[in-house]
Amino acid sequence: MSKSLVRKSLQGFRPYMPGEQPPDGEGWVKLNTNESPLPPSPRVIEAIKAAANDSLRLYPSPTAASAREAIARRFGLDPAQVTVGNGGDELIDLCFRAFVDAGDRVAFPTPTYPLFEPLCRIHEATPSPHPTELPWELPPSLAPDPASLKLIANPNSPTGAFFVTQEVEAVVGASSGIVAIDEAYVDFAPHSCLPLLEHHENVLLLRTFSKSYGLAGLRIGFALGPADLIEAIDSVKDSYNVDRLAIAAAVAAIEDEEHHRNLVSEVVKNRGNLAGALADLGFDLVPSSANFVFAKPPKPAAEVVAGLRERKILVRHYDREPIAGWIRITVGTREQQESLLAALKEIVS
Amino acid sequence: MSKSLVRKSLQGFRPYMPGEQPPDGEGWVKLNTNESPLPPSPRVIEAIKAAANDSLRLYPSPTAASAREAIARRFGLDPAQVTVGNGGDELIDLCFRAFVDAGDRVAFPTPTYPLFEPLCRIHEATPSPHPTELPWELPPSLAPDPASLKLIANPNSPTGAFFVTQEVEAVVGASSGIVAIDEAYVDFAPHSCLPLLEHHENVLLLRTFSKSYGLAGLRIGFALGPADLIEAIDSVKDSYNVDRLAIAAAVAAIEDEEHHRNLVSEVVKNRGNLAGALADLGFDLVPSSANFVFAKPPKPAAEVVAGLRERKILVRHYDREPIAGWIRITVGTREQQESLLAALKEIVS
Repeated sequence: MSKSLVRKSLQGFRPYMPGEQPPDGEGWVKLNTNESPLPPSPRVIEAIKAAANDSLRLYPSPTAASAREAIARRFGLDPAQVTVGNGGDELIDLCFRAFVDAGDRVAFPTPTYPLFEPLCRIHEATPSPHPTELPWELPPSLAPDPASLKLIANPNSPTGAFFVTQEVEAVVGASSGIVAIDEAYVDFAPHSCLPLLEHHENVLLLRTFSKSYGLAGLRIGFALGPADLIEAIDSVKDSYNVDRLAIAAAVAAIEDEEHHRNLVSEVVKNRGNLAGALADLGFDLVPSSANFVFAKPPKPAAEVVAGLRERKILVRHYDREPIAGWIRITVGTREQQESLLAALKEIVS
Repeated sequence: MSKSLVRKSLQGFRPYMPGEQPPDGEGWVKLNTNESPLPPSPRVIEAIKAAANDSLRLYPSPTAASAREAIARRFGLDPAQVTVGNGGDELIDLCFRAFVDAGDRVAFPTPTYPLFEPLCRIHEATPSPHPTELPWELPPSLAPDPASLKLIANPNSPTGAFFVTQEVEAVVGASSGIVAIDEAYVDFAPHSCLPLLEHHENVLLLRTFSKSYGLAGLRIGFALGPADLIEAIDSVKDSYNVDRLAIAAAVAAIEDEEHHRNLVSEVVKNRGNLAGALADLGFDLVPSSANFVFAKPPKPAAEVVAGLRERKILVRHYDREPIAGWIRITVGTREQQESLLAALKEIVS
């Protein structure tokens, strides 16, 4: 290993590990990466097939213009307040590229999305974690932190906790740097922080088509924010970061509001059923505003996860405090949840 | 403008500007961004349509496993020696992320791909340009440069110059850091630097499906190199940087060797015709090993470019020394080249 060729600041680096993706069609019940249990809109599939033609020889629009316009229309914004990324993860990364110099502080509540910390390493930023305890509310120490960038996943993952707009606004108002609100799960929550854009110049909302649009396989995210911050992000992104098929899919997805509404409402209904059934099995739960539930089984989490795995059921477990006793379970279809609950009954009783 | 929110090290930053992408189907002759004049393989279109299904609700393989395997088979390598990116540009960026600390030197001959310099700014690296003159050969000063990363576009753009393997190997052998050879255009050149992988631990080859596979619209590139360098790149990439449709397309594209061969051979034939006709019109030319020609018109380049633009023909012009007098023209179809040559005849005579 020519380890000396790797950057010095990445020696000993532990990258973010995504949840396991078993090969398709092998009968797994996959409740570990918060994908949608329901498929994308049929209009998205049609749009992709229509775009799969000889024009693929040409680069996409560097601004993903049609997708920006469709998203802007949907949220009542100007297209200059929207940019599109290769998944929400790319947009988080672009916030570092645009707003964080080497040595700058990046603050976030913990536990949270485990990508934030490795991104600090990659960008030579100083992570400034703000630990929270049950019930995982927004920590008061976050607002006065002088970080260049604050990252707030809202709803948060893996906890599913939702921070109301007023609390987030208090952080935004007290911050001299950027506050990026990762709203990947917000469609399953009571409301978005979108109104903050009207009154604040330092706030960005990051969204994704991966969850509530059923398009994790396509990698499309978007950011909403003041035009000058969007311009800063655009200046540091790859020229053609979103491909022609993803652009076509994004337009079709955002325009099929009925499919989106139905998908969200089915997930919210199933979330309620799942939470109720887990409580009946003796799990501790915090209320979830996302497309997953975070629950503490009455037996050691690692044991429960292993038992599920034997039965080809995948859930997510972060083996670190203060959440080592908890597991995160994606809301599934009714059938998936019945399989899960039957397995859990065997494992915990 | 809340300019103070942008990173200090990006104040005054001039981002890379990609060539103009006019809206489709408006009758432009587009010879400015080195896209393939011929479409991708019909098998690629079929593969995309087959993959456009409900499984898009699931994340792609984080390793793009099937694409890695197909590419490895094609080049007689192990899959651990291959990684896949969201276009070749992402792979260049990932070389910075994996191998360049803030303050490190990044060396490259100039003129070259104008993305390298802004990437240095973004990653707080010190650019170490090595100027070349006509006929744009590899500068002797490059080999002893103590840079952490050297970037060699081979064939080079916009010059079209090709550096033979022996010369490149001299640089690789003299370098303590990584040498990344951007082989985006190599399929149109006499040979690849692939054999260097057998004898050197510090060399990476970057490739793309955008040019010789006719897939600029899809954003797929790949890197070939020693397994430990590939692992380092993988550790800093987004988890799901290549989507399901792109993975399916990459596999189909790499496996349709006949389509690829025919595409390359048509482009090489048209390149010869174009170069000959331009010489007849009084253009200066250097031999090109890429899918474009770099030519100095007998009139000021800006004037020629403007005249072409009036006629809805786009070519690329970099208005800076030592290449301000030159234009880069993508090899087109026979029909496109006839339109171009007819227009040039009017403009330069």
